[in-house]
Amino acid sequence: MKKYSELTKEELKNLKTQLEKEIQELKLLNLNLDMSRGKPCKEQLDLSMDLMSVLDKNSNLICKDGTDCRNYGQLGGIEEARELLATFMENKVENILIYGNSSLNVMYTMIMQAWVFGIMGSTPWSKLPKVKFLCPVPGYDRHFAICEEFGIEMINIPMSETGPNMDLVEKLVSEDDSVKGIWCVPKYSNPDGYTYSDETIKRFVHLKPKASDFRIFWDNAYTVHHLYEEPEKRDHILEILTECEKVGNPDIVYKFASTSKICFPGSGIASLAASDNNIKDIRKHLKIQTIGYDKVNELRHVHYFKNLQGIKAHMLKHATILRPKFELVFNTFDKELSNIDMVRWTKPRGGYFISFYAMHGTAKDIVAKCKELGVKLTDAGASYPYHKDPDDSNIRVAPTYPSINDLEVALKVFVTVVKYVTVEKLFA
Amino acid sequence: MKKYSELTKEELKNLKTQLEKEIQELKLLNLNLDMSRGKPCKEQLDLSMDLMSVLDKNSNLICKDGTDCRNYGQLGGIEEARELLATFMENKVENILIYGNSSLNVMYTMIMQAWVFGIMGSTPWSKLPKVKFLCPVPGYDRHFAICEEFGIEMINIPMSETGPNMDLVEKLVSEDDSVKGIWCVPKYSNPDGYTYSDETIKRFVHLKPKASDFRIFWDNAYTVHHLYEEPEKRDHILEILTECEKVGNPDIVYKFASTSKICFPGSGIASLAASDNNIKDIRKHLKIQTIGYDKVNELRHVHYFKNLQGIKAHMLKHATILRPKFELVFNTFDKELSNIDMVRWTKPRGGYFISFYAMHGTAKDIVAKCKELGVKLTDAGASYPYHKDPDDSNIRVAPTYPSINDLEVALKVFVTVVKYVTVEKLFA
Repeated sequence: MKKYSELTKEELKNLKTQLEKEIQELKLLNLNLDMSRGKPCKEQLDLSMDLMSVLDKNSNLICKDGTDCRNYGQLGGIEEARELLATFMENKVENILIYGNSSLNVMYTMIMQAWVFGIMGSTPWSKLPKVKFLCPVPGYDRHFAICEEFGIEMINIPMSETGPNMDLVEKLVSEDDSVKGIWCVPKYSNPDGYTYSDETIKRFVHLKPKASDFRIFWDNAYTVHHLYEEPEKRDHILEILTECEKVGNPDIVYKFASTSKICFPGSGIASLAASDNNIKDIRKHLKIQTIGYDKVNELRHVHYFKNLQGIKAHMLKHATILRPKFELVFNTFDKELSNIDMVRWTKPRGGYFISFYAMHGTAKDIVAKCKELGVKLTDAGASYPYHKDPDDSNIRVAPTYPSINDLEVALKVFVTVVKYVTVEKLFA
Repeated sequence: MKKYSELTKEELKNLKTQLEKEIQELKLLNLNLDMSRGKPCKEQLDLSMDLMSVLDKNSNLICKDGTDCRNYGQLGGIEEARELLATFMENKVENILIYGNSSLNVMYTMIMQAWVFGIMGSTPWSKLPKVKFLCPVPGYDRHFAICEEFGIEMINIPMSETGPNMDLVEKLVSEDDSVKGIWCVPKYSNPDGYTYSDETIKRFVHLKPKASDFRIFWDNAYTVHHLYEEPEKRDHILEILTECEKVGNPDIVYKFASTSKICFPGSGIASLAASDNNIKDIRKHLKIQTIGYDKVNELRHVHYFKNLQGIKAHMLKHATILRPKFELVFNTFDKELSNIDMVRWTKPRGGYFISFYAMHGTAKDIVAKCKELGVKLTDAGASYPYHKDPDDSNIRVAPTYPSINDLEVALKVFVTVVKYVTVEKLFA
């Protein structure tokens, strides 16, 4: 099949006419489909229903250290939950704090604390003339929204298959003391699905920031979210806090995790791992913020998963549901879009998203046209600071929530629209 | 029995000798009792065990509006929970937001938002040279700890049986635009157990603050926490937000509530009620902080309590457990301390605390001596900003957590120590 770049004006014109017809036909279907949300589907939620019964009115809600989960107290979480999350996060129990239901909220809290109180004695960020964050792009829109809310200036850092452009990261971090942080989703990154290479992580570990209160915000959201039973070697990442400790740089990183996309989103437990110094600093503020988080829910998760093996076994069930959806996207794109040599897409082996890179200057048009045909996609530009994709190219594809049937129809619309908008652009 | 003020030097000396002997005997008991914590006791926690089974693996976790409680979303809470809390708080559903497990954390968040972003367009408090809060004293130590953390200057406002000294409140609020808030526990106040009178509340409603971003932090922590089946008329308070709306002053108040001392502390749901304008302002920031709170737990509470009648019926069971403990304190104090005319105590008909006012300059000594004898009390001064009780007089008595037997022994120690320290002071 001829590449789009090789088509003559005449061929383009014919193709455009044909695609216009196809678009008209799709319009008649009056679709109402949603491929915009990185949410688990119903079948995934059903996997965790036993969580609802693992504790009941006859359960012993007293922890092994005597803490009554029903009463006040135990800031930082019950021992059992910290142990579970410690194995999950590959960190020591004493470096773990358990929070409420949202790791995003933990990240927000870390920024808020730095903003109001500073970090380990540093000047509160609110008192500085300028605070900047490095943002590997495309990235997670809610990370960027936090920065925008606080007026933190965001600097785009290009992503590649091995992680962010570390030459640029090293340069900015070492030269500019207003650079206070970087957002990282190191495994199956949102939305590309890239996993940072060992070399990338080692370069993070060895960063020598000009600002003593620079922190790597390490959002390991998809740590066990593999699509395949046997993750490849590259899908395992170095544990950054341990590596940082080894080289005497332990305070540089805040690690975040949660069970949200493991069992019920919004009803899970979130955690933070950090160095002894950071934990001490954070606890000092945390004890003013709350008396403690939901210990009954912590115990519920401990009883349900029991240990890391329990979590991993549970994730295999998710993979069985999600793999066909991701593969449907890959196969449809391969089959339908391979000859459009100005588009590309990623093929993650885990996580929740696929990045589609449209011909420059067409992402917004594609999303708008899909919407017109009843298929909702994430807004173009959503994965960039200030919603500005400089190339107007990236579209975040979220295949998890719709059923296979709905996804199939939505993809049909998507590929037709990609072809149509690309041809239109080439023709113009 | 002769009043302490009427005792001769000789009588005091004899009394002192006798009390010294009693103290020595108590020391031999090697006690280890705790009357410091405003926590429910085990029997109270046992009342709510059905909460653990009201939802199980066969439950329908879909809300009436179609929201799947298991998935992401629904910032501000599920409709069912907002309806329950609306009747509980006596406010309209649209004026309610449901948060996580801690109303203290909601209060912290409101201060934090004002600090970083301002309120409804006002200058962020962090940018002001000075921010002050009015603190009715004695009051709740964790309120004051939040102010201290943010560097907010606290001004003591004397409490009486009808509430804070409103002359002073009106004067400070109307004259000084750096006064941005006041902490109120309007019913069964912590630690006095006083309930604000209608007149006090009406004066709050009519406040004309110099600062447009002044807010009343209305922590109605003990709204249904009566000790007696038939609360007296004075134990019902005017609903402040409704009253504020009536007089065109709706934005002046943030109301807080939670189910923490109704079912399980730390595993309940917290809520905020505020005017339309405030809710709009708060939501704008809240949506950056989190995707949503624990909806499964919200639904759990809705199924468990069903409605306000369910909550009230449940609270009667708490009262049955707590009333004898409070009455034991009242009776012991009446019997043992009535002739010490330089001490007094409150007799709340609800809430979690009793205030004991020792002879000026002796509270610290009493708490220290009790500790020596193995009875832990709340630190003297804890109920005052900066932990400074200007009279060194107030001691917060928390009778809920210990068993009746332990409480009896602890009270024996307490009254003996009060006598001893008072006599010592009088003798000096």
